[in-house]
Amino acid sequence: MANENKLQAIIGHAKEYGFVFPSSEIYDGLGAVYDYGQWGVELKRNIRDYWWRWMTQMNEQNIVGIDAAIFMHPTTWKASGHVDNFSDPMIDNKDSKKRYRVDHLIEGFAETLPEADGKALLEQMEQLLAADDFAGLKTLIENNKIKCGVSGTVNWTDIRQFNLMFSTQVGSVAEESNEIFLRPETAQGIFVNFLNVQKTGRMKIPFGIAQVGKAFRNEIVARGFIFRMREFEQMEMQFFVRPGTQKQWYEYWKEQRMEWHRTLGIPESKYRFHDHVKLAHYADAACDIEYDFPMGFKELEGIHSRTDFDLTQHQTYSKKKMQYFDADLDENGKAYGNYIPYVIETSIGLDRTVLMILSEAYVEEDLSTEEKQDSRVVLKFIPKLAPIKLAILPLTKKDGLPELAEELMKECRQHFKCFYEEKDTIGRRYRRMDAIGTPFCVTIDHQTKEDQMVTIRHRDSMEQERVPMSEVKNIVMKAINA
Amino acid sequence: MANENKLQAIIGHAKEYGFVFPSSEIYDGLGAVYDYGQWGVELKRNIRDYWWRWMTQMNEQNIVGIDAAIFMHPTTWKASGHVDNFSDPMIDNKDSKKRYRVDHLIEGFAETLPEADGKALLEQMEQLLAADDFAGLKTLIENNKIKCGVSGTVNWTDIRQFNLMFSTQVGSVAEESNEIFLRPETAQGIFVNFLNVQKTGRMKIPFGIAQVGKAFRNEIVARGFIFRMREFEQMEMQFFVRPGTQKQWYEYWKEQRMEWHRTLGIPESKYRFHDHVKLAHYADAACDIEYDFPMGFKELEGIHSRTDFDLTQHQTYSKKKMQYFDADLDENGKAYGNYIPYVIETSIGLDRTVLMILSEAYVEEDLSTEEKQDSRVVLKFIPKLAPIKLAILPLTKKDGLPELAEELMKECRQHFKCFYEEKDTIGRRYRRMDAIGTPFCVTIDHQTKEDQMVTIRHRDSMEQERVPMSEVKNIVMKAINA
Repeated sequence: MANENKLQAIIGHAKEYGFVFPSSEIYDGLGAVYDYGQWGVELKRNIRDYWWRWMTQMNEQNIVGIDAAIFMHPTTWKASGHVDNFSDPMIDNKDSKKRYRVDHLIEGFAETLPEADGKALLEQMEQLLAADDFAGLKTLIENNKIKCGVSGTVNWTDIRQFNLMFSTQVGSVAEESNEIFLRPETAQGIFVNFLNVQKTGRMKIPFGIAQVGKAFRNEIVARGFIFRMREFEQMEMQFFVRPGTQKQWYEYWKEQRMEWHRTLGIPESKYRFHDHVKLAHYADAACDIEYDFPMGFKELEGIHSRTDFDLTQHQTYSKKKMQYFDADLDENGKAYGNYIPYVIETSIGLDRTVLMILSEAYVEEDLSTEEKQDSRVVLKFIPKLAPIKLAILPLTKKDGLPELAEELMKECRQHFKCFYEEKDTIGRRYRRMDAIGTPFCVTIDHQTKEDQMVTIRHRDSMEQERVPMSEVKNIVMKAINA
Repeated sequence: MANENKLQAIIGHAKEYGFVFPSSEIYDGLGAVYDYGQWGVELKRNIRDYWWRWMTQMNEQNIVGIDAAIFMHPTTWKASGHVDNFSDPMIDNKDSKKRYRVDHLIEGFAETLPEADGKALLEQMEQLLAADDFAGLKTLIENNKIKCGVSGTVNWTDIRQFNLMFSTQVGSVAEESNEIFLRPETAQGIFVNFLNVQKTGRMKIPFGIAQVGKAFRNEIVARGFIFRMREFEQMEMQFFVRPGTQKQWYEYWKEQRMEWHRTLGIPESKYRFHDHVKLAHYADAACDIEYDFPMGFKELEGIHSRTDFDLTQHQTYSKKKMQYFDADLDENGKAYGNYIPYVIETSIGLDRTVLMILSEAYVEEDLSTEEKQDSRVVLKFIPKLAPIKLAILPLTKKDGLPELAEELMKECRQHFKCFYEEKDTIGRRYRRMDAIGTPFCVTIDHQTKEDQMVTIRHRDSMEQERVPMSEVKNIVMKAINA
């Protein structure tokens, strides 16, 4: 299946089977915002919980979590640089009043050119963007006679920066009313709480602080389904280390994070590291883990050696000492003493991970035989991540079969999420469970009343076997914990 | 301990031991917003997960979840009534420019009067508020010569409504820019997705849709620590039923929700139902479950019979039919057919539940003997909700004891959250675990190397017993699942 088609197929399937709906769809939606449906919410929760447990519970490093509010003191975003720098260059067409992101406008034009010319144009653009040369960019647009798609004219304003943070007013008392921002990243919630956590948790370096939560960016062109949304969820961990050891910890977390991805059962060939050549002002090393999405290799996770930039900034703006006292002894037998820790960050998009897991799991299978054409769509989630672990299906609605099924439901739902359905043919019920990725179906038939045996059907192989009803719970539990 | 003191003690303890920090504290905080620290986040997660599993996995009713975005189409809030009605009457003093919530201004004055006079004044106020008689309220303020605390004058503006929703601008393209709101409740995310979930999930009435998420209200006077915050988290479930059956389902959910509270191990005497006498415009029955917080009985959870108000409103505004076809047969053998379902809502504040659990668990114990004075602060969480389930403490840092401890850590952290500490006296380490509510501590001593036995210490009784190291995991698991 062509990649563009695959993304469209996933979007359609996600909507049809209750994974992802456009937000406020009855009001014709809200741009670049999505709602998770009844199975999407479980998939997302399973990924989030697994990341959290892996980071803060099962990890051999000392990592604790926090849950900072979305609302933060506005000075946070002065210190972090977001007020001054978190922006994209924009240009307006004076005739149509339509506003464009400068890079998108030029890229769109470049696509209409012969390949070599387009490439040359994009290189010029990159150089001007890197130099923040807005006058040069405007000249580039004018010299190439790049037109507005609406007015068809080249009558452009100057280029200006447009900040991507959402703002709101807090407080009702007129003179106390303040502009605050919806956080554009979760990382700063960790940095401003560094002292609180370190002191109240008696944390010793090296240690990490993890956080999962919503962040908001007023994206100009949000695209790629749940890949780039205006409201999204991040899973971040900041690891605090002794200055001078950051390179080794950077390598350590690159390896560790890739290890986490391996446990998801995704082939390593679908991932690649992309080293940042042009580093952000706060970083001394940085890379992305890219996944081969239906639209190509794209950033899924970032691993950044952020130095002491953030803590130093917050120290400057807050006048609170962000120091750590390290009692360990150096090679000369002297305590390392006071310093501002260095930071390695791992930051992964939860919604992007959902899209990765959906993309990886989505399979259209041709099941045709010589006699008849047949096919199915199956989501091959690993059991740990599947929204529903087990479907319990009485063959008919009578003869005491639903009662037997209810017994099994009662036992199993104490431990994992089950689904009960008594209508329709077994074949149709299986296919619906395939479509939402349920790894096991159990059918209860008349024979079950005699011998307490049930048929368990495996999603991927579609193989069926008879097992004692009393064994079902353990079979499923074993698969979940594998 | 006096109740006001108890709340102050809990706030202090929550900060000192990493449960709840003021938001952005290094910048002197942000009003009525809090951050959850390293143990608070785990407590909150445990409560949230338990509610979610109880509602959507273990419940015998058919309930699924969703996770709708905080950003919703603005028409949602026209339909729900929030744009027009979600507001408080406010008054400004013309000299000081200070703005007051009218009821708070009058209440503050009533407290300065002799009891009978104060009560009479409050009764007058309630009647005028119920009638939305703003002119009458202003006259009441002027006749009583209620002064501004800042200017000391009675020079008041007229009373106006102040909407509690936060707003922001979405979209960068000038002509597409729209004012949207941060949702003031999570319920509407369920109602606008009713058709999507019902159809894609093939849901049959009665069924429920649950959601946990952040909501935002620009409270004039936010108070009571995490009881009333500007950013908070709700756990809501909307249960869709056939019209005419709502009274029985309302009673069912009152009973069921109280059953959930019973499983938290809190005495029933600490709860009471408070029936709403004046019903909201959308309700035909409503009550609160109140808990006896340190500041007295206050609303923790609401159970509301919301009729078909919300779905009907959304049908009107969206022009999408919110109907359900009920194929079941009535007493005359005719299918019930098409109708807009009625709704029973259960809505509980997650942050308030955290405060309840902290209040209930917090105990100052006098452990003095004739020989010496002693005391401890202990958080008596049920094991299911405790942030850390087990502390593993080698008696000394040498002689291979840390290595034995690490073996046990490796086994146990696969299953639940553990804490390792090797510094300080065992007594001090126990007390720190008491202060964060860890139900079990295991000490590994020199004898352990010989016989593989460890000392397990129970938080509440402080009793200690020798058990095989290989049994520790099972002992803790059993307590968590109790």
